[in-house]
Amino acid sequence: MGNFKGHALPGSFFLLFGLWWSVKYPLKYVCRKNKNACYLGTRAGFQRLELIEGIIKAVFALIGMIAEQFVPDGPHLKLYNYEENHWDHLMNWQHATMYLFYCISGLVDIVAHGTNALPVAMDRMMLSLAVFVEGFLFYYHIHGRAMLDLHVHQLLLVAIFGAAICIFLEVFFRGSIVLEMFRTSLCILQGSWFWQTTKWLCIWSLLIPYKLDYCRIIQAGTEFVCMRKEGATKIGFVLYPPNGSPEWNQMDHNNMMFLTMCYCWHYAFAFLILAVNYTIVSWRVCSKIKQAQSVEMGLLKTAERDQESEDEI
Amino acid sequence: MGNFKGHALPGSFFLLFGLWWSVKYPLKYVCRKNKNACYLGTRAGFQRLELIEGIIKAVFALIGMIAEQFVPDGPHLKLYNYEENHWDHLMNWQHATMYLFYCISGLVDIVAHGTNALPVAMDRMMLSLAVFVEGFLFYYHIHGRAMLDLHVHQLLLVAIFGAAICIFLEVFFRGSIVLEMFRTSLCILQGSWFWQTTKWLCIWSLLIPYKLDYCRIIQAGTEFVCMRKEGATKIGFVLYPPNGSPEWNQMDHNNMMFLTMCYCWHYAFAFLILAVNYTIVSWRVCSKIKQAQSVEMGLLKTAERDQESEDEI
Amino acid sequence: MGNFKGHALPGSFFLLFGLWWSVKYPLKYVCRKNKNACYLGTRAGFQRLELIEGIIKAVFALIGMIAEQFVPDGPHLKLYNYEENHWDHLMNWQHATMYLFYCISGLVDIVAHGTNALPVAMDRMMLSLAVFVEGFLFYYHIHGRAMLDLHVHQLLLVAIFGAAICIFLEVFFRGSIVLEMFRTSLCILQGSWFWQTTKWLCIWSLLIPYKLDYCRIIQAGTEFVCMRKEGATKIGFVLYPPNGSPEWNQMDHNNMMFLTMCYCWHYAFAFLILAVNYTIVSWRVCSKIKQAQSVEMGLLKTAERDQESEDEI
Amino acid sequence: MGNFKGHALPGSFFLLFGLWWSVKYPLKYVCRKNKNACYLGTRAGFQRLELIEGIIKAVFALIGMIAEQFVPDGPHLKLYNYEENHWDHLMNWQHATMYLFYCISGLVDIVAHGTNALPVAMDRMMLSLAVFVEGFLFYYHIHGRAMLDLHVHQLLLVAIFGAAICIFLEVFFRGSIVLEMFRTSLCILQGSWFWQTTKWLCIWSLLIPYKLDYCRIIQAGTEFVCMRKEGATKIGFVLYPPNGSPEWNQMDHNNMMFLTMCYCWHYAFAFLILAVNYTIVSWRVCSKIKQAQSVEMGLLKTAERDQESEDEI
Repeated sequence: MGNFKGHALPGSFFLLFGLWWSVKYPLKYVCRKNKNACYLGTRAGFQRLELIEGIIKAVFALIGMIAEQFVPDGPHLKLYNYEENHWDHLMNWQHATMYLFYCISGLVDIVAHGTNALPVAMDRMMLSLAVFVEGFLFYYHIHGRAMLDLHVHQLLLVAIFGAAICIFLEVFFRGSIVLEMFRTSLCILQGSWFWQTTKWLCIWSLLIPYKLDYCRIIQAGTEFVCMRKEGATKIGFVLYPPNGSPEWNQMDHNNMMFLTMCYCWHYAFAFLILAVNYTIVSWRVCSKIKQAQSVEMGLLKTAERDQESEDEI
Repeated sequence: MGNFKGHALPGSFFLLFGLWWSVKYPLKYVCRKNKNACYLGTRAGFQRLELIEGIIKAVFALIGMIAEQFVPDGPHLKLYNYEENHWDHLMNWQHATMYLFYCISGLVDIVAHGTNALPVAMDRMMLSLAVFVEGFLFYYHIHGRAMLDLHVHQLLLVAIFGAAICIFLEVFFRGSIVLEMFRTSLCILQGSWFWQTTKWLCIWSLLIPYKLDYCRIIQAGTEFVCMRKEGATKIGFVLYPPNGSPEWNQMDHNNMMFLTMCYCWHYAFAFLILAVNYTIVSWRVCSKIKQAQSVEMGLLKTAERDQESEDEI
Repeated sequence: MGNFKGHALPGSFFLLFGLWWSVKYPLKYVCRKNKNACYLGTRAGFQRLELIEGIIKAVFALIGMIAEQFVPDGPHLKLYNYEENHWDHLMNWQHATMYLFYCISGLVDIVAHGTNALPVAMDRMMLSLAVFVEGFLFYYHIHGRAMLDLHVHQLLLVAIFGAAICIFLEVFFRGSIVLEMFRTSLCILQGSWFWQTTKWLCIWSLLIPYKLDYCRIIQAGTEFVCMRKEGATKIGFVLYPPNGSPEWNQMDHNNMMFLTMCYCWHYAFAFLILAVNYTIVSWRVCSKIKQAQSVEMGLLKTAERDQESEDEI
Repeated sequence: MGNFKGHALPGSFFLLFGLWWSVKYPLKYVCRKNKNACYLGTRAGFQRLELIEGIIKAVFALIGMIAEQFVPDGPHLKLYNYEENHWDHLMNWQHATMYLFYCISGLVDIVAHGTNALPVAMDRMMLSLAVFVEGFLFYYHIHGRAMLDLHVHQLLLVAIFGAAICIFLEVFFRGSIVLEMFRTSLCILQGSWFWQTTKWLCIWSLLIPYKLDYCRIIQAGTEFVCMRKEGATKIGFVLYPPNGSPEWNQMDHNNMMFLTMCYCWHYAFAFLILAVNYTIVSWRVCSKIKQAQSVEMGLLKTAERDQESEDEI
């Protein structure tokens, strides 16, 4: 259950934001290209979106912080255990600290886009810092673990620090669709990797129904078989095998190579999602523009006909 | 006492500069936005500020250098101890070298902003180099220490090299408020971390009177209790516990994780300071502008009334 | 034979692309300089080239993926060996993953240059990511090998990550001839180094006929003699000595230094190729322009003469 | 003697170039500021300078290559020793390879500034690569040495890679005086550090006559006394103590710290040289401009007086 908070919860946040961004940024780009034809292309509309995004981010982060502190086995704001002379629930405190910076980032978003007081570029700077702090805490979080566990987290660090650099670049190249797409892909990657390494239900294995056999093979990598036909999908994962199941060999170099590869597949998958969403958005906007144009044309034609009929009269 | 020179003195310098910058840059930004309404918005005014800043920096650095050399237990310009065949007070020499580069940076500021001879961007370049040299000396300074001690200094290196990169970027993106705020936050972080790791009085624990209990918890992390009620605040710290107190366990991974987290809190605290100062500055400037405008309006109205009365006559 | 797929095949791809780019980019640059005189200087012409390049890249990558999977000793899409409980042909899977990202990059090229839907800069971003993923997989690929083997691959990583950074910079500085030449040189370097470390025929030793003795000396470095006079060039290489030949001493520091140096010679060689191709392209284009101008001049002169003769008449 | 080629020769090259640049770039900057008043401010003049610089660089590099190969104890183009089955004079080959890339850089300079064929920015790119290759070879050069020896070379790597990055930035920010000054300072640093670590005569100790006592102290660091009064300055240095002298303790952490500090002093010294040269150049140009202006004024006045006298007549 502790793992749910640590991996599945942030994973869901990242996935949600990634999916939302994979719709928002293509929409913004397509609307900017077809300026006059788009009702959403206004700057004010997108600024309101950013504001709402900031509020949601801040609320999510607040929920995360409270959840980390006040779950039954949480620290309840106690930092040090005097009886046993050791730190109390350091993991929860670390996760709460991570959420704290996302919360600050959300607040800066709200002020920067809701009022006129703060320079707009501050939102990217704070988001970049929030991501960096996440990576920074992660980096010392994983000190002294077994090789495979370390590797799984190190892979995540690549995505996290990559995202931090990407967002930092956005401070200077604001509105670059390329950087925005890059950030989105890294965000989805993070989210899906968090889920991959959770012991919770494997959602993405449920999403590949057409190729059950292949799904089995991948899961076999975790030395379990995906029993989809029985309804209850009980799948073991890399980090936390269910009780009674054989654990992964933490020192096997081949496992490490497989995981690296698996990580790349996740990234390819993130690009697939991006491509699909981009296509849908482009297609919808284009069809709407055509519709609008044909209506306009129709109105024009009617107007002309009226004119003609008037002339005739 | 030696530690005072090494941690508390530079910490105070960094804090002072950080606090000053957290007022200066928002002021500059707000004044630039409301150009005509601001008496400080002139380029000449800010150039004079930069000049004064350079002088103060150079003087501070000079004081630092002299203090390092001529304190009672300093090297007094002696580099090598012939009697015992070892280097003499290398630490003091290193600190003096760090100050030397800040002194050079101050001199370049003075020449760049006081005369017309040097390109203005040279001031950022030299400041960036001064910060880099500080980090560079630090890096070899901490070679071969115990894990926790090393970690405390490594955390500082992140802020130092981050600041060096940020200032280097300012060479090309001069006057970017985002980079200036980023630099300010890192500067405050450095200063407060220097103080956190000193054995001097814990200033910031005195600043949190409203939540004494929480203060106790944090201090408990250092295995001491903040006895604020007795007047004399005797608090032990991470690196230098007072005599007779149990030292930190240098090899405990949990301590390392706590310190990393604590460092992040310092950073959040730096942003809090920034936010407060930014708000105050914005609010003061805006209220002054409104006042000026209302005075103007009043004068206009009086003038109009006079006109009207004249017309009546 | 397995090595052929892993080193010689990608090496050939990189060499082909490098050589093609060493013709294309100088041509583009020279044409842009002499705008009106060049039939290829049109934007549309180069966009079609990019499209074709994308198609070829995607097809090559597809061939690579299929070859990795379905060669006689390939995995045939099987990932896990249930009988012996270990991963099946992980190397092939890794190579296929590398090709996958190049394939995605090719597809993005096709969409970005063939249609109007995608921002053009996406092609560089995806290529940069494909190169980065190659390096990323390589990095964990080489974990735990012998020193010299590791070193040979690490040298490659310098070129790979260098290329990834260079292409990423092209997102922002698109069309910069300097970055394009830099990328081309790194691409040729990669290709030639892949070949250098293959046990296949040493192609570049055949290309230096004028200094056979020197060729012998280099090959001697691999403890073999280049028997060019017998027709069959049987040369052993660093990583995979032919059966029966003495292997390289994997732990000798001198071997490592030699290989580093050899790598630099490859790079100098890449620049030689670039210089030669650049010269040829410049010279051809210039001579064509002169020809065209003289034809024009001739036509003009004829026209003038006609005019004159008309006047005379 | 072998050390002379390896440290003192490149050190002299770097020092010469650094000193020349510390004159050239300030001159260029001052001339650009006072455009009409400067006979050297023409683009053509500086392009010719760049051309000459390229030629000198190429010639120096060629001399270096030949010197490395054909000194009495050089390899004479022999790479492998068949009798004893080991590499022959690998060091000399490595140094020759370094010179090779500087030679290529010189050639590119010549073509880029002498003809119109190559884009001008290529000269910075090649110089950056040449510096990078130097650092790259150095990096593997120092593998497996004693701690202090390693450290001395690692310090150099900071300057080398810093210069490579700086020159690479110049590709995009060409003509930025800040980057040019930065590069110059790193170049002087490299040169002076090469000399510091040579067993040749200590030139810079001869340059500080006014503070002999301090000079003694520094040299004492190398456990020798600078016997300046006897005429023959026999000074031992860090890496290569003269025969019979006690060597440095390679494992003492204090020695490492001293050297790091000493390196920083060298850098401060480089800035001193830069400042002095900058001042002289600025002052000379300004005085020339004033002179020219007063001559002009004089001529004007004479002309006016003539006019007046003419009027009087």
